[in-house]
Amino acid sequence: MLQINPVSSGLKSALQLAINSKTKPLGALGALETIALQIGLIQNTLKPQLNNPMMLVFAGDHGIVDEGVSPFPQAVTAQMVTNFLAGGAAINVFARQNGFGLHIVDSGVNHTFDQHAGLIDAKVGFGTRNFLHEPAMTLPQCEQAITRGAELVTRSINTGSNVFGFGEMGIGNTSSASCLMSVLCDLQIEECVGRGTGLDDRGLVKKIGILRQAVAHHSLVADDPMKVLMTFGGFEIAMMVGAMLGAAQKQAVILIDGFIATSALLVAAKMQPNILQYCIFSHCSDESGHKLMLEHLQAKPLLNLDLRLGEGTGAALAYPLVQAAANFLNEMASFESAGVSGKS
Amino acid sequence: MLQINPVSSGLKSALQLAINSKTKPLGALGALETIALQIGLIQNTLKPQLNNPMMLVFAGDHGIVDEGVSPFPQAVTAQMVTNFLAGGAAINVFARQNGFGLHIVDSGVNHTFDQHAGLIDAKVGFGTRNFLHEPAMTLPQCEQAITRGAELVTRSINTGSNVFGFGEMGIGNTSSASCLMSVLCDLQIEECVGRGTGLDDRGLVKKIGILRQAVAHHSLVADDPMKVLMTFGGFEIAMMVGAMLGAAQKQAVILIDGFIATSALLVAAKMQPNILQYCIFSHCSDESGHKLMLEHLQAKPLLNLDLRLGEGTGAALAYPLVQAAANFLNEMASFESAGVSGKS
Repeated sequence: MLQINPVSSGLKSALQLAINSKTKPLGALGALETIALQIGLIQNTLKPQLNNPMMLVFAGDHGIVDEGVSPFPQAVTAQMVTNFLAGGAAINVFARQNGFGLHIVDSGVNHTFDQHAGLIDAKVGFGTRNFLHEPAMTLPQCEQAITRGAELVTRSINTGSNVFGFGEMGIGNTSSASCLMSVLCDLQIEECVGRGTGLDDRGLVKKIGILRQAVAHHSLVADDPMKVLMTFGGFEIAMMVGAMLGAAQKQAVILIDGFIATSALLVAAKMQPNILQYCIFSHCSDESGHKLMLEHLQAKPLLNLDLRLGEGTGAALAYPLVQAAANFLNEMASFESAGVSGKS
Repeated sequence: MLQINPVSSGLKSALQLAINSKTKPLGALGALETIALQIGLIQNTLKPQLNNPMMLVFAGDHGIVDEGVSPFPQAVTAQMVTNFLAGGAAINVFARQNGFGLHIVDSGVNHTFDQHAGLIDAKVGFGTRNFLHEPAMTLPQCEQAITRGAELVTRSINTGSNVFGFGEMGIGNTSSASCLMSVLCDLQIEECVGRGTGLDDRGLVKKIGILRQAVAHHSLVADDPMKVLMTFGGFEIAMMVGAMLGAAQKQAVILIDGFIATSALLVAAKMQPNILQYCIFSHCSDESGHKLMLEHLQAKPLLNLDLRLGEGTGAALAYPLVQAAANFLNEMASFESAGVSGKS
């Protein structure tokens, strides 16, 4: 298991002093000041640099879709991967705009893709099994997904990336995330289930019923996160868990996206609580349940824009704010250097 | 008086259809979808383009500071202008990062500046008068400030800008903004006054007392916005009113910053209510009162980051989200073009 160390706190006072000395009223940059401090601590420097931001989008299929939990057919997972590779999805647009490298990862889509420069084949299987009846994956599959996720991050770190967004695509994966959440946050399933890609009222009631049954069937507890992950996870979620752990282990900044990505973090944080020190929460999703997840993690997200798309879009959209935090720390003058009078 | 026309609604259905056809669940881009529609309507096109974003920062001094309403000395206004010109302030950092042109405008600072390529001399006076005792400016001064603000925007529009942020600097200007708000929103002064650059409890009580006296002294009503502006405004606020009106008249997109900028918009919207159709509200400030101002305007801000710096920083920081709205509309594939299956 990857071991995550806490961030070094040696420069905390010096960083806070540098932030407070900038030509602005004390605290006037709000959440950006918190982020600037965090990045400085992660990188253990007064001059943090964000280099080669990388977005990894993990795609996988889910056996639970057999139960009719999504209004979209399973084929959409593969179709959206093709859309990613053609550059036409939302994450393509936002990653381009905000300077991210973008890799699409086949974690376990129920489709065989042609080779493509933008596609990383890390397939663990052709979709998970139906967790209403049996664990979604085997323990070796789950471990393999985690290991591959961490390896992919290491590869990007070796080419100079020190800040990551992790996105996902997988028809049915809000069902996985809801079950992970229910067990790991110890919440009733009703509080964890939302409309996903757009279920109507009847579909929502049905989804809640199926997931309640699934959670009851496996009867798991929060303190065995690996068991919870292999039971309810998707291959893309498990790979994201590994990617997050790998990124934190190497002191990278992690931009946490929405409902699915945060469910992966719930698993990772149960394994290695120190990982949270490396995470910036990009947004609060419109998907019901995400707000409770964030509260469980005591996380304050940067954006509240009613996004509910996944793919890493929230992380890509929030990134300029993270850059702004590093930039003000590096580039703003101090009261002293600018010759500006202080408060009386 | 500049006449502001409503945006054309001729393409509304076509824009909504274009947004809904993108490869994402219906509505999944939340607030960005609202912005995309708005920009399309403002520009009356299905393919809106944001060109040469321009940030104008207006600086002015305030007679009311004689009453001790700010913990910073008046000299800080001029010192911060010098800091802007040297590139060391927060707005310099964020404007640079997000691709804004930046002009600093001397609207009425109590200081004579040397010539500088980045500084526009539009000085109406060496600070306003103390509105505790008399109107802050004369009617001709107020009209001159509005006219110059509109002219500055026209100049930028003529060089290709179609999206504007307006920022400000002026020690004491939260006092102006609070009084404008109290009269124009018909709210008790206590609801409109905050700590500004960082007043302590005692300073806050004192500020409220002085501003209550000032508002009572002039006894104005909301339906004469010019009178309200000349009484309580700053030169930078009046110039911002003109800039906003000028931008809307030329169908530019206006990014509204924080407490001071929104107080200018309160005036402009009282004069020309259609201006609101051209405004994107960048953030909700931590300055007490801004939230109520936004509610008064029924505005939903993009960011909630506890910023309270002014200078246009909120507008500059929110801009990548506005770009993202235009970009997804222009660049994302549709379900049809990408061959992705729809909802069942």
